[in-house]
Amino acid sequence: MNAKNLFNDNPARRRIYIEKDGVKVGLTEVGLSPTRKSDGTLTPNAPVKIYDVCGAWADADFHCDPSIGLPKIRQAWIENRAEVEVCGKLEPSAKVPFATRKIYKAKAGKRPTQLYYARRGIITPEMRYVALRENIARLNAESFSADFPRADLRFQHAGNSFGASIPLEITPEFVRDEIARGRAIIPANINHSELEPAIIGRNFLVKINTNIGNSALASSIPEEIEKMLWSIKWGSDTLMDLSTGSDIFETRENILRNCPTPVGTVPLYQALEKVGGMVEKLDWQVYKETLIEQAEQGVDYFTIHAGVLQRFLKPASRRMVGIVSRGGAIMAKWCMINGAENFLYTHWDEICEIAAAYDVAFSIGDGLRPGACADANDEAQFGELKVQGELLKRAWEYDVQVMCEGPGHVPMHLIKQNMQNQLDWCSEAPFYTLGPIATDIAPGYDHITSAIGAANIAWYGTAMLCYVTPKEHLGLPEKEDVREGVVTYKLAAHAADLAKGHPASQYRDNALSKARVEFRWDDQFNLSLDPEKARSFFEKRTSKVHSGEFCSMCGPKFCSMRLNRELRQFGDGGERKEL
Amino acid sequence: MNAKNLFNDNPARRRIYIEKDGVKVGLTEVGLSPTRKSDGTLTPNAPVKIYDVCGAWADADFHCDPSIGLPKIRQAWIENRAEVEVCGKLEPSAKVPFATRKIYKAKAGKRPTQLYYARRGIITPEMRYVALRENIARLNAESFSADFPRADLRFQHAGNSFGASIPLEITPEFVRDEIARGRAIIPANINHSELEPAIIGRNFLVKINTNIGNSALASSIPEEIEKMLWSIKWGSDTLMDLSTGSDIFETRENILRNCPTPVGTVPLYQALEKVGGMVEKLDWQVYKETLIEQAEQGVDYFTIHAGVLQRFLKPASRRMVGIVSRGGAIMAKWCMINGAENFLYTHWDEICEIAAAYDVAFSIGDGLRPGACADANDEAQFGELKVQGELLKRAWEYDVQVMCEGPGHVPMHLIKQNMQNQLDWCSEAPFYTLGPIATDIAPGYDHITSAIGAANIAWYGTAMLCYVTPKEHLGLPEKEDVREGVVTYKLAAHAADLAKGHPASQYRDNALSKARVEFRWDDQFNLSLDPEKARSFFEKRTSKVHSGEFCSMCGPKFCSMRLNRELRQFGDGGERKEL
Repeated sequence: MNAKNLFNDNPARRRIYIEKDGVKVGLTEVGLSPTRKSDGTLTPNAPVKIYDVCGAWADADFHCDPSIGLPKIRQAWIENRAEVEVCGKLEPSAKVPFATRKIYKAKAGKRPTQLYYARRGIITPEMRYVALRENIARLNAESFSADFPRADLRFQHAGNSFGASIPLEITPEFVRDEIARGRAIIPANINHSELEPAIIGRNFLVKINTNIGNSALASSIPEEIEKMLWSIKWGSDTLMDLSTGSDIFETRENILRNCPTPVGTVPLYQALEKVGGMVEKLDWQVYKETLIEQAEQGVDYFTIHAGVLQRFLKPASRRMVGIVSRGGAIMAKWCMINGAENFLYTHWDEICEIAAAYDVAFSIGDGLRPGACADANDEAQFGELKVQGELLKRAWEYDVQVMCEGPGHVPMHLIKQNMQNQLDWCSEAPFYTLGPIATDIAPGYDHITSAIGAANIAWYGTAMLCYVTPKEHLGLPEKEDVREGVVTYKLAAHAADLAKGHPASQYRDNALSKARVEFRWDDQFNLSLDPEKARSFFEKRTSKVHSGEFCSMCGPKFCSMRLNRELRQFGDGGERKEL
Repeated sequence: MNAKNLFNDNPARRRIYIEKDGVKVGLTEVGLSPTRKSDGTLTPNAPVKIYDVCGAWADADFHCDPSIGLPKIRQAWIENRAEVEVCGKLEPSAKVPFATRKIYKAKAGKRPTQLYYARRGIITPEMRYVALRENIARLNAESFSADFPRADLRFQHAGNSFGASIPLEITPEFVRDEIARGRAIIPANINHSELEPAIIGRNFLVKINTNIGNSALASSIPEEIEKMLWSIKWGSDTLMDLSTGSDIFETRENILRNCPTPVGTVPLYQALEKVGGMVEKLDWQVYKETLIEQAEQGVDYFTIHAGVLQRFLKPASRRMVGIVSRGGAIMAKWCMINGAENFLYTHWDEICEIAAAYDVAFSIGDGLRPGACADANDEAQFGELKVQGELLKRAWEYDVQVMCEGPGHVPMHLIKQNMQNQLDWCSEAPFYTLGPIATDIAPGYDHITSAIGAANIAWYGTAMLCYVTPKEHLGLPEKEDVREGVVTYKLAAHAADLAKGHPASQYRDNALSKARVEFRWDDQFNLSLDPEKARSFFEKRTSKVHSGEFCSMCGPKFCSMRLNRELRQFGDGGERKEL
């Protein structure tokens, strides 16, 4: 793999930086060609700014060497914190070739979390960073005025956000207040200094997550790094490393040192590996060691299936499909073997203390999410959701940032109830859903069945969507599956942003549509979520003809796109009217 | 192409027939393997019946020769009609090798349409056919009882159909009444005797359409037949032939004689070809000749852009993208050149008379559908929709069956208004939409951006969805694009059926999910929309291991699916509770 070629492959898309309030945020700027008027004159088109998650990998002068890792942009911020101290260091080794790394931890009794600072009215550099970052689409519209002139690219339909409160401009103060309120999180472990902070919450842009990870059956460290790079290339906002194979520690260290986005894990998976895969040998001690090991590496959020309680097992046993969450199934089995309550639940306070010491956020797992449409919205699922709501309040007492995981398989008409219950029972903490898959009958196309559910639930208020690939239910995703899954989820998230009415989110749609009608094919491709695929489809079809001056659907004789030039001259230039 | 191999490739999926009320309806029956209990005993699983559109092509003993064509299953029905007479015949020729074919037409002053018969209380064989056909999924549940026991495959969530009235059992009387009311249509030209009738309406299963057709740039008659076969293999309910290249008549004749589903066209395309592609030469005479030519061939529905009126051109000129419907653009240009009203509008009564004489249904075109999210729900679009509502009432006076076409590009939160306006302004006539595409920024993935909109609008009440392929906006679809588009739209339509609560529509989901949890991999594949793709993904991944007894996502050590066997024994067998 040549990471340089992976990211610097399109001269029209450049990584640039904007600076404000002492932070410097990277973004993609898409350069556009001018509009050619019918009289032959050229009018320039302003470049379009796009939210970008590639980090230094997309910088023209970056070393692009995964054995060195990313620059530690947060190191000074972290070291400036009075609540933080160095508790150890990690020396290089054969499979972990990076320079010696200091390990940070809270001083005794301290909690250096974003929630801790926010509650005390403190604006952290991470908060300033995400505020600037969330405004990138808005920067295209130049001003934050609500009444964009309708005739140009700034026109946007008023949204319907189902009660979300999305401001015209995102300020650091707004970020702080949303975090203090528990309505948004910035997963940012103090040991992940390579991180470009991102915010997850209902009043911010909808985010997506990619799952990668080796398994007992396949994959190596370089392959996992490649999958990580591939996922950020296509725009994934966070990454979950679900490795269960060999070299779990080393794999994760290599990912964290190279990953500019938040990284999540399910610590239970590694704990189970440590006891040879035997659920009966799992206990609090091995789990606790795993939490600390991962927190010291810089994992930004932990999925913890603490809501799978004994009383839900009988309702789950009545289902069509039972339990499909791997973490949920492990804890269910543990409860059955031991005849005891879920040890993640009984040790919740200690888990909170560990997380607070490194600012690891929680993603409270939905171990009882439905695995078939038949099982949607049942007693087991909603019972666990209520427990998630209790657990998160207890985590907030420890200043730990929290989001809640959600389904799963849910037919369209039952999706909204999931969002409403989560808002009601979980105090508006960010919701993070897997799909949901809207019908069970399309294995091989589950990225699509789930994108339908995902776009809807994100519109209703879900803050982050966990991607699903075409291989869901059938096998582990490979590179092309990751691309297909990420792009599918990016489009679902954006469709939700549009529907919610995120200020200026329609700008990119408008710019692309204008490029389309003006036959600026390269601009259309470069503004799209997957320029390479769009271009390859187009080039394949037009190889037989010589001009790009007609729509390839119609052919050269009569093209409706060309008609629109004549139509525009026919028109009176009046203002459009929305009904 | 070997059509035999195309359809008879899976011994677990057989075409069978059910007979009732003198009609014989084909369907797919999926044979399942038995469930193996933990004590080793086997319990058989009943085969699952699936709605099927393949016609005789999927019969084991069919000749599968496209130069002979399908059996004329409707010929006796049509010849029995007192209102019909033979008006000519078509002799074989080099490119049209079929046996001499009689051409039917209404006797003078008669209107042998399904709407004519329905209004007079007459139940046609076509109505009995679609009634039986629409019940196929319900047959899986054995009885039409509303209270299926919850524990088995008959369990289904109550739907939310936004005011649709879907009965537990579809009777011929219900079909007749829905047609008489104008709320459903059976597009069934009396010259398409090879047709297996299908019904399109809000109270029936959601249907999907595939567009094929040659262009000036590409394709031949055998290629178009192959695309047609490919589209029915994957389950497309109707087919539009949008040919604009050479041999339009011959291509269409070959499609109609071999196509078991309704076939639609945009007659304007051929009329424009007849005048050398010069819009200024288009007139009523050439259009009328085209209508008659196509009606005599057996085209089941015509898309007619009669609602593109002069007064909408100025509003359309103010749009981001203007007019993107090819038919709409042609008529807009015609109006601009001639400074006259759309001749399809001014000749509407004569068009209705022609359609009534052959029972060609109308699909009133949405020539002003938005081609960008920015243009959604504007003055031009909704102005035309109101005109569609006027035109359809006039068509009903001639006993012509009608549906209305809809958008296009619409962000999610503006979709429902489209459906509501159509219901209000178009007297509940079936709505037939293209997508809508929910964001403009994903060329190359527009089958997905549009499936999101399509699933939503179908849930709200759209009766038929026109598919979109990954090549939309970029090029003409090839075989694999057709497959991807059809399967994507089948899943969107099914997701909508589930959400609306079509009786027994969840049965197939349940059967597939049960197969999944029981590791009956072949059953899971055979029950899916695309068994070949699901199987190929699975085989690729498990080639490295020897057992199918674990989920390929987890690997052999701990599998959540296997846990569920233990969970079931742990449970008390009580009834599940929905919240």
